[in-house]
Amino acid sequence: MADLAQESRTEGRRVKTPDLGTLRGAPDRDRVEILDQTRLPHTRAIVSLSTAADAAHAIRAMQVRGAPLIGATAAYGLALGLRADPSDAGLSAAHALLLAARPTAVNLRWALDRVRRAVSALPGSKRAAAAWAEAEAIAAEDIAINRALGAHGLPILERLSAGRGEPLQILTHCNAGALATVGWGTATAPIYLAHAAGLPLHVWVSETRPRLQGAKLTAWELGALGVPHTLIVDAAGAALMQAGRVDLVLVGADRVTRNGDVCNKIGTYEKALAAQDNAVPMYAAVPSPTIDWTLATGGEVQIEQRDAGEVLNPAGAESIAPQGTQVANPAFDTTPGRLLTGLITERGICAASVAGLAALFPEFARG
Amino acid sequence: MADLAQESRTEGRRVKTPDLGTLRGAPDRDRVEILDQTRLPHTRAIVSLSTAADAAHAIRAMQVRGAPLIGATAAYGLALGLRADPSDAGLSAAHALLLAARPTAVNLRWALDRVRRAVSALPGSKRAAAAWAEAEAIAAEDIAINRALGAHGLPILERLSAGRGEPLQILTHCNAGALATVGWGTATAPIYLAHAAGLPLHVWVSETRPRLQGAKLTAWELGALGVPHTLIVDAAGAALMQAGRVDLVLVGADRVTRNGDVCNKIGTYEKALAAQDNAVPMYAAVPSPTIDWTLATGGEVQIEQRDAGEVLNPAGAESIAPQGTQVANPAFDTTPGRLLTGLITERGICAASVAGLAALFPEFARG
Repeated sequence: MADLAQESRTEGRRVKTPDLGTLRGAPDRDRVEILDQTRLPHTRAIVSLSTAADAAHAIRAMQVRGAPLIGATAAYGLALGLRADPSDAGLSAAHALLLAARPTAVNLRWALDRVRRAVSALPGSKRAAAAWAEAEAIAAEDIAINRALGAHGLPILERLSAGRGEPLQILTHCNAGALATVGWGTATAPIYLAHAAGLPLHVWVSETRPRLQGAKLTAWELGALGVPHTLIVDAAGAALMQAGRVDLVLVGADRVTRNGDVCNKIGTYEKALAAQDNAVPMYAAVPSPTIDWTLATGGEVQIEQRDAGEVLNPAGAESIAPQGTQVANPAFDTTPGRLLTGLITERGICAASVAGLAALFPEFARG
Repeated sequence: MADLAQESRTEGRRVKTPDLGTLRGAPDRDRVEILDQTRLPHTRAIVSLSTAADAAHAIRAMQVRGAPLIGATAAYGLALGLRADPSDAGLSAAHALLLAARPTAVNLRWALDRVRRAVSALPGSKRAAAAWAEAEAIAAEDIAINRALGAHGLPILERLSAGRGEPLQILTHCNAGALATVGWGTATAPIYLAHAAGLPLHVWVSETRPRLQGAKLTAWELGALGVPHTLIVDAAGAALMQAGRVDLVLVGADRVTRNGDVCNKIGTYEKALAAQDNAVPMYAAVPSPTIDWTLATGGEVQIEQRDAGEVLNPAGAESIAPQGTQVANPAFDTTPGRLLTGLITERGICAASVAGLAALFPEFARG
């Protein structure tokens, strides 16, 4: 990847990939092992997936989550499905089963379609092996994309740190970390590169109601990888910015539309409003498979409405509200590109706009 | 109260005070009964307070909370203290004990100083009765202030509802309701008057992490008083505004400075940013005892930092974050007056500015 030459402090240096064992193909190609993220932060449990149905369940139950990791898991799931039934009917059935597992992540369809393209012209006897190889390629590319994205983001952190006597203060929301990917994470990739380069930093982790991915996953991940951090409730982010205690906001993206609108975990939009009001730079980390070139604006994204239980039972204990309370639980919101300083992609940084994305990805933007 | 003449739909009509039994002086003047708000929403428990220490404990443990209710409870607590020891030393000790119970609420000092002024020139034998009478006056005034505030706010709701075929959509944060006062509530007073007048409305209740007062108290209170409502996580408020599903934001205030900056529950500032970005009107309900005339701007308010356990154990169950996770827990934030459409007070509505407040309260603003 030529883009890696843009790295500054870590240029030429080997940095170990932050990889938390989220997804590993077994050498025998008969199963994948995943870290069951529903057990975090208190238990580190590995689960073995042997069939397409296992993989679909892992995605549906959010044992794996995060757009890039969902895509890679689905790709392996399709390979496992072809191992059991490599016929056209088997391919269609496994593709449909996996595609239905989670509605919002654009990477899911992207990865499944890519594996299907790679195998559909092959005879049945060669499909499982070819699909497995394509899944491995998708997983390896995820790591490479995130590494490149991190290299492009790193200079932002270096610039903001220059001349400071104290750690750079970064705020993130939800988990766009190594746990959301095969390795590195997206929003966390520049952070891990900076940390490896010895740049002093501290991360404000916004807990991310209702599912608490910040508290349960990001705090765990940063702890596991040795990055200093502090947990806050979601609403405290704006107050910290107002108090001058945040230098940079870095978030991920579930889906980005052609004009740079960012559909991401509910609460991202509020962070962007607070960043703008306090002149704090804010970037979304956007690997290109997350860009939905078919949608013109964020207003066209269908927002997943999730179960009331996520809101009512945050810690699995008794309901926080009176019995029978009506709940609304939109899982994502859309941050207008105008509120973002920019998007960090594996090809570089661009404005969150039609022109910005088109300049970096002319081959897609044309369509 | 002449201001009540400004009421429109409910003018001349008797509306029963929404009173949830938050605070009642016993006829024998030897105790007060409070609704233990830490037991809500699943248990309605009445606790009897017989001493100043009981009252201080109830305030400290947040069995009573909400700036106006804290003030009235402290006033009764001082009366109970004088019943046990009416000497100057007893007065000072009870005053100090109660004042230390909660740091942020400006009403606490206001109510305690008022009772002390009413009794300090009296002989010991008359102090307890005079203090009790003053506490009763404070409680009665709270109801009258909130009723007047509601009457001033009601026309805002009527205007926004005019010609709509569907319920008015109001978003509120935390609990500035009847539970936070002796009766009516502050932000809820216009809502209860509108509801009593038959105006169709629906309230979005933002859960209010970390202590979940929205989920535990506001949802309970609106349910008890028959007002339709839906619970959301805090971060969903902005997304609802973006989707055009909120017509009005109404919040309370813990402390308002001379320039109209509103110190209120953490998350209020984010709501104001979202309201501004989506042209949704937003008002803070501000009974005058909540105004701190000694502070020029919200930047001067000392923000209470509360315990990490509130963040880590939202439902009393196991920690949501890894063991040892560092937590920051600021309890309040400051919403700059520039973001608010106005303040609703018992004397009318004004701009959230020095001039706006001074016009309504010239006698205080002068100092």
